[in-house]
Amino acid sequence: MEKQTRARALGIRIGELPCGERNLITDVPGVRVGHRTLDTGRYETGVTVILPPVKNPFAEKMPAASFVVNGFGKTLGLVQIDELGTLETPIALTGTLNVGKVHDALVEYMVDLCQKDGINLTSINPVVGECNDSFLNCLADRPVEKADVFAAIESASEDFSLGAVGAGRGTSCHSLKGGIGSASRTLTLDGKEYTLGVLVQTNHGRLADFTLPAAKNIGAELREKLNAAAPDKGSCMMILATDIPLSDRQLRRVIKRCPVGLIRLGSYIGHGSGEVAIGFSTGNRFPIDDRADIHPVYQLDERKIDLLFRAAAEATEEAVLDSMLTAERVVGLDGHVKEALLPLLRPYL
Amino acid sequence: MEKQTRARALGIRIGELPCGERNLITDVPGVRVGHRTLDTGRYETGVTVILPPVKNPFAEKMPAASFVVNGFGKTLGLVQIDELGTLETPIALTGTLNVGKVHDALVEYMVDLCQKDGINLTSINPVVGECNDSFLNCLADRPVEKADVFAAIESASEDFSLGAVGAGRGTSCHSLKGGIGSASRTLTLDGKEYTLGVLVQTNHGRLADFTLPAAKNIGAELREKLNAAAPDKGSCMMILATDIPLSDRQLRRVIKRCPVGLIRLGSYIGHGSGEVAIGFSTGNRFPIDDRADIHPVYQLDERKIDLLFRAAAEATEEAVLDSMLTAERVVGLDGHVKEALLPLLRPYL
Amino acid sequence: MEKQTRARALGIRIGELPCGERNLITDVPGVRVGHRTLDTGRYETGVTVILPPVKNPFAEKMPAASFVVNGFGKTLGLVQIDELGTLETPIALTGTLNVGKVHDALVEYMVDLCQKDGINLTSINPVVGECNDSFLNCLADRPVEKADVFAAIESASEDFSLGAVGAGRGTSCHSLKGGIGSASRTLTLDGKEYTLGVLVQTNHGRLADFTLPAAKNIGAELREKLNAAAPDKGSCMMILATDIPLSDRQLRRVIKRCPVGLIRLGSYIGHGSGEVAIGFSTGNRFPIDDRADIHPVYQLDERKIDLLFRAAAEATEEAVLDSMLTAERVVGLDGHVKEALLPLLRPYL
Amino acid sequence: MEKQTRARALGIRIGELPCGERNLITDVPGVRVGHRTLDTGRYETGVTVILPPVKNPFAEKMPAASFVVNGFGKTLGLVQIDELGTLETPIALTGTLNVGKVHDALVEYMVDLCQKDGINLTSINPVVGECNDSFLNCLADRPVEKADVFAAIESASEDFSLGAVGAGRGTSCHSLKGGIGSASRTLTLDGKEYTLGVLVQTNHGRLADFTLPAAKNIGAELREKLNAAAPDKGSCMMILATDIPLSDRQLRRVIKRCPVGLIRLGSYIGHGSGEVAIGFSTGNRFPIDDRADIHPVYQLDERKIDLLFRAAAEATEEAVLDSMLTAERVVGLDGHVKEALLPLLRPYL
Repeated sequence: MEKQTRARALGIRIGELPCGERNLITDVPGVRVGHRTLDTGRYETGVTVILPPVKNPFAEKMPAASFVVNGFGKTLGLVQIDELGTLETPIALTGTLNVGKVHDALVEYMVDLCQKDGINLTSINPVVGECNDSFLNCLADRPVEKADVFAAIESASEDFSLGAVGAGRGTSCHSLKGGIGSASRTLTLDGKEYTLGVLVQTNHGRLADFTLPAAKNIGAELREKLNAAAPDKGSCMMILATDIPLSDRQLRRVIKRCPVGLIRLGSYIGHGSGEVAIGFSTGNRFPIDDRADIHPVYQLDERKIDLLFRAAAEATEEAVLDSMLTAERVVGLDGHVKEALLPLLRPYL
Repeated sequence: MEKQTRARALGIRIGELPCGERNLITDVPGVRVGHRTLDTGRYETGVTVILPPVKNPFAEKMPAASFVVNGFGKTLGLVQIDELGTLETPIALTGTLNVGKVHDALVEYMVDLCQKDGINLTSINPVVGECNDSFLNCLADRPVEKADVFAAIESASEDFSLGAVGAGRGTSCHSLKGGIGSASRTLTLDGKEYTLGVLVQTNHGRLADFTLPAAKNIGAELREKLNAAAPDKGSCMMILATDIPLSDRQLRRVIKRCPVGLIRLGSYIGHGSGEVAIGFSTGNRFPIDDRADIHPVYQLDERKIDLLFRAAAEATEEAVLDSMLTAERVVGLDGHVKEALLPLLRPYL
Repeated sequence: MEKQTRARALGIRIGELPCGERNLITDVPGVRVGHRTLDTGRYETGVTVILPPVKNPFAEKMPAASFVVNGFGKTLGLVQIDELGTLETPIALTGTLNVGKVHDALVEYMVDLCQKDGINLTSINPVVGECNDSFLNCLADRPVEKADVFAAIESASEDFSLGAVGAGRGTSCHSLKGGIGSASRTLTLDGKEYTLGVLVQTNHGRLADFTLPAAKNIGAELREKLNAAAPDKGSCMMILATDIPLSDRQLRRVIKRCPVGLIRLGSYIGHGSGEVAIGFSTGNRFPIDDRADIHPVYQLDERKIDLLFRAAAEATEEAVLDSMLTAERVVGLDGHVKEALLPLLRPYL
Repeated sequence: MEKQTRARALGIRIGELPCGERNLITDVPGVRVGHRTLDTGRYETGVTVILPPVKNPFAEKMPAASFVVNGFGKTLGLVQIDELGTLETPIALTGTLNVGKVHDALVEYMVDLCQKDGINLTSINPVVGECNDSFLNCLADRPVEKADVFAAIESASEDFSLGAVGAGRGTSCHSLKGGIGSASRTLTLDGKEYTLGVLVQTNHGRLADFTLPAAKNIGAELREKLNAAAPDKGSCMMILATDIPLSDRQLRRVIKRCPVGLIRLGSYIGHGSGEVAIGFSTGNRFPIDDRADIHPVYQLDERKIDLLFRAAAEATEEAVLDSMLTAERVVGLDGHVKEALLPLLRPYL
């Protein structure tokens, strides 16, 4: 994997908290991420999967929560997450019109996985998020196939690329090229170190509103330079993972702070931008073969939750910025182009 | 279409309000329903579609709302309905693991439909409900194909069968055969007659809890006779349509009374039964080519809404009962059997 | 306390599960209930308090949840319960326009209580529910004073009266006299016995819809006899307590089944009836002086929750019925009368 | 009223949209605001009321919505607003422990008002917001009396003071003196000018996080200078009014963008800060004596809503900043001091 230039390497420091070793969501122990990228001109799209740190997430569920910041979107699986507060599949991200096919691929993947474990699966709740990448990609053709989803899952690892890859291949952010970003923060609780990580698929924001951390609004200048005046229309998917033991209610409170990161970079959560945050905690597990009626679980003292709010806001802000900094220029459907941020930014650094 | 024996024909009268001409959801002017039934033994399942009364529901949206009674389910499309308060596709019902494929079929149907209307569709919110029919049907194979969804849409009409058909082919209700039920009620407002109709896909309830309207709990007796003691696990999808002009908030209040009908027949909304109600009003339209910034719409005086609550409760109760009365005995996967209610009920009438 | 005639004594058996020793919410160990009744003709009202089993509920919070069945009501304190998932004061019930004064009394009670414990209280979330008792009571005068609230708290015990007492003094149910009802159910988990109890303040339902358990709709007959045709307007407050360790999400799922009890007796959750359920679990405690960052807590295996749903539905149904059976005839404001159910029911038993 | 120095006068320009004549919430025609300030050292607190533009808001309701950003707060009245989507009283803001007393004062005010209009009021839903001003004010004494609420209502006008007045007398913002702020934006729809205004009661934010618009983070410097390191604990109440005709669902979407303004100034919506937004539209009215069953109402084309999102974000940001710029230094309970921002800011301008 080639080295990508990220905010931190440019001297842009976001927030106060320390970041994890890779500054990625995979700093949360056991979490893995995989991409499958389609890059044919007509199809500039793909799929990105986030795998929880268990062999079979249906057989070993963990607490999860969702928060719909702006529901003009098609994310699948939230009804059951809200009711039962658990995650039971990998989370997949893709282009808007592809969610049905990716849903079906996750069903097949889970049926197969459970069969190997001797579980006759008749009900499963796949979680699929999406952004609209139709500017660069022929979304109506729904080019992401089952094999692509399986390939993304198989390739999942602790190291993964950012930018114009996977589900971020065809997306835009603040009218420039966006894509996949990620960041992490570490926190100490009861003397032990924990990690909170975020992965984003960015496809939101107007250029004129783009504000550089360390507080320079360069968007207005760039807009004049690029003559770009698109509305905030697209979406941003925000996936948060942590090994801090949280209840689903606490998780929902934490992920409600993810949009703070978007807003600090200039977003006002536009009407056309379907923003959804999904979080899971690896700090509690509910094994399917545990037969006790009452289970011990762990949860954070509510009075300490502010630190997690800050971590979620900081990590999301940095992840969004990194999704832009690491994204290369892409030419897609009908010759449509999205410029990369990094070359434009150089004069300001 | 052969004549089916329904509650009313048996002298069972539910509630106080008069019903519409057909006593079906299609009494709401322009609403149509279509089925596609798979009946091969291994596959006892299908798809049922409810079509709003417009040629292209994306080009002429109407108010819609959802209410999740119990979210242990996989219904797709609710996030956007909740945010924007509108319906923009047909509503499809099917078996649980099939929702991804049916979602994709609806995407294709809508992309094609919009293309004919000169609309380049890059985002659409298909609404797909589901029940788990895995007792009679090999759900893991996901046998409902795109052609089945298209066939159901093409066959849609104002007259349609009830019982073990379409998405109700493989479902059970109170441990007996369930399926598709429907009923309607008429109401007079400002001197004009309006209609409220309900369609249900029933797959919920314990036998011992089953209570006949006119207040006889025959479930306990039937349970002994049949030796059936399954838990309440399954789901019930409840679709409500009305030509009364309602806001999406008012619609949500009305569909919150649909579960009253289930409960009166004995359900207590079990943990395993993912119950979801979805409603739409044909009394307001939002045409895509209306360019005004401010639109006149109509809405019910809130003080008159009680009558609609009663109509929703009554119609749902009758629809659930009819889904059982009209359902034939089905032998499905691995020889599993679900008995029909009607023969069992005869001695009590 | 004189002996009151309850459903069970009349041979009316509701549901399948066994009830606790007193068949009251106070079967949950440590829970206490107190009333203060105003009975002057012009003022037929009062206050009822439910005390969690700790000396200072702010210093030892426990999991709590709320569910708004129909939000045409003025219950105070739900915003914070939903956010933080904990209860920190007694729960008080009263007449609608009195909630501000009762809120202020609870503030004073808690400030005093905390002062004794060396806690400088600057923020507290009193929970106050209400029903509209304006038919029998001059509600606009807001006659419940601080001293009444304190008296109710001081009188709280494990034994308490049902019917036309406390916050139930002026309320009606199905057009007859309603009031305070309560019931409990016991459940065995991991070989240990637990209790779930419900207390209701009933003020809802039309007479014509009233349905006797064991399935006789006597309401229609009674309506003709009494010539009463009032709409469903009023409210029902439902308080649930249990010593089963639950998370706040699980509690919310359980209390969502309380309205099943109302519906079985004939309610369809009318527009004018502001129905709210509030629950708390005494099975987890969060002491204010616990300084650990991560706490062990206990929670029910989700797959066992069905039994609690059934218990909540059964106990609520029985509590509502008992609120009517135990309520005496009351003559109130301007000579308005509400008849008692028991004498009317005798011919049917 | 003396002239107050506001952001705009200092050359600080927030956002793109033009502001109304006064740059206050009262630019929305007919909306009025009144204060009652207590300033005794021990009591530095008060009440602020926002009056909708009708003589009797119960007799002429208008669409309303609430959005709980962070529910660690005690705001009263949201349950009914969420259910019925209407406002029926003035909105009052005060200190946390005073909400019960202010609620009771609003009940009395409305009972009297309705009596004059021949309405026998037995149910009313007062809306009361709050911030915790216990650092400067002896909150436990609950010093705001009924007469104070009535005085605030009587003094209400289109011109009103900002800063350390009314409900903002004792509050803090980013560890400096906060209080009442307000701003407005104008928008053109169908060729007609409309106004959207915001009023805030600010009591949130850490000093280190405070970020000046035009993107300078001066908070970190000020923190060192002032040696202040308090957590984000307090609350921010955000009241939005507009004459644009909106449905309650649309209003909720608009007020969900109010927190964008807080976040741009540095807030991350801390755990201890109970942030609530409440909005109403004067563009639709529901008169109590309208006897039609179906009413015509007006609502914005959803595709134009982005402009309102931007207006809500901009106006809230400017209102928060103005609440600080206009607030004088206050010495309160036990000699506690909160410094004013303006003198500290001068060197940076």
